[in-house]
Amino acid sequence: MNILVSNDDGIDSPGIYSLASALKEIAEVTVVAPHQEQSAAGHAITMQLPLRVTKYYRDKEFFGYAVNGTPADCVKMGIRNILGFYPDLVVSGINNGSNTAINIIYSGTVSAAREAAIMDVPSIAVSVTSHNVKDFSFAARIAKNLSLAVAERGLMKGTLLNVNVPNIPESEIAGIRITKQGKSRWDDIYEKRTDPFGRDYYWLTGNLKQEDNETDMDQGAVKNKFVSITPIHFDLTDYETYNLMKDWNLEHLVNEK
Amino acid sequence: MNILVSNDDGIDSPGIYSLASALKEIAEVTVVAPHQEQSAAGHAITMQLPLRVTKYYRDKEFFGYAVNGTPADCVKMGIRNILGFYPDLVVSGINNGSNTAINIIYSGTVSAAREAAIMDVPSIAVSVTSHNVKDFSFAARIAKNLSLAVAERGLMKGTLLNVNVPNIPESEIAGIRITKQGKSRWDDIYEKRTDPFGRDYYWLTGNLKQEDNETDMDQGAVKNKFVSITPIHFDLTDYETYNLMKDWNLEHLVNEK
Repeated sequence: MNILVSNDDGIDSPGIYSLASALKEIAEVTVVAPHQEQSAAGHAITMQLPLRVTKYYRDKEFFGYAVNGTPADCVKMGIRNILGFYPDLVVSGINNGSNTAINIIYSGTVSAAREAAIMDVPSIAVSVTSHNVKDFSFAARIAKNLSLAVAERGLMKGTLLNVNVPNIPESEIAGIRITKQGKSRWDDIYEKRTDPFGRDYYWLTGNLKQEDNETDMDQGAVKNKFVSITPIHFDLTDYETYNLMKDWNLEHLVNEK
Repeated sequence: MNILVSNDDGIDSPGIYSLASALKEIAEVTVVAPHQEQSAAGHAITMQLPLRVTKYYRDKEFFGYAVNGTPADCVKMGIRNILGFYPDLVVSGINNGSNTAINIIYSGTVSAAREAAIMDVPSIAVSVTSHNVKDFSFAARIAKNLSLAVAERGLMKGTLLNVNVPNIPESEIAGIRITKQGKSRWDDIYEKRTDPFGRDYYWLTGNLKQEDNETDMDQGAVKNKFVSITPIHFDLTDYETYNLMKDWNLEHLVNEK
């Protein structure tokens, strides 16, 4: 089995190191990851700037390719140019911080996996629910075991799995839940500051409005100590509105001045 | 009616100028757009860098706020800090180049509208199917008339409309189609070059594999000279796989070493 590993925290993050180490037990692993942190990069790709690839050695065990781009760039370039063939699986992570509910939209970790799904390669995104993870080994084991399950059963084309692991001792994990994307959103706050030259600038902060408590929702599952696995796809069509709008009779839009 | 206007081509692009001009006929318009082109920014948001807002005057008619960030940043900051209230509508565009099929995923234009939908503000993204549009006036009129229709009928929370207008003379437009997101994808090519210092770099290019010909798909509709209106949302859950995976019995993932 060939697995391409990427992330959004950057090639020197501890999460990708743990992930690659665990996956090497079951597969040939190639690491292609952003040179610098790309959190909240969403599904950006780099078209206005050239991309460069540099070799990165962390130690004797960990070698990878660093790309000066986004997580989606890394997967595109990793498959098209570095591997030169379609791997059996792409695994992205392990992310510092949960990628549940609305955060799925902003997440570079998920976008790396989604780029693989766009290329019809099965993929998994893995995150731990803390920005200060001390030990990724349990999440790495989940990633390894789920990779084996996906290799055995397959995924539908265009589907990826978004995994969130609670940042608690392994002994407290309540189990696994297959979940839906939650509804929790951010109350954004732009903190206004003044630079040394007297000019204003703003930092984005905010609070996640907790709206999901049920364990069949990603955010509710991890809150209740379950590992959450959410199957997601990228057919964004809102079929309910699609059917409703056929009765809007919008032909007049073209003719009205 | 209050309308917030943004885009991904940047505040000095002709498309946003035409859009704002048309919408001023029906609403109070506030423009908040990226300082620089942000094509393919996806749904990135800026968290690692501070944001700045500068006032931009193009002429006596066109005034706006330029933000050194992404399209999604502009909508967040436009609503939270610049307006300070929820507008009735957010309209994003008019983009140079179609945002159909897989391009919806990469599009900054669509992400600006999606950020509004995340904040429960109805929104519309508008694109013309050419990177060299000479005249945005027909697309601007469609945007204006569709804005009135949305103001009258409303949209479900979390739904936005993605509009693509063929780049052909108005007299050749075949009509309006309510459509689904198409399946066309890119065959990516990374063009390898060498810089003046002898180091390799890569530019992303490629060809769109045309897979959608039916006029009920966005890409097929514009190819057949229809204005395409696709209702999209951001619930990414793949419900079919969600139901299937309940039978995978994955509890062993937690215990297996």
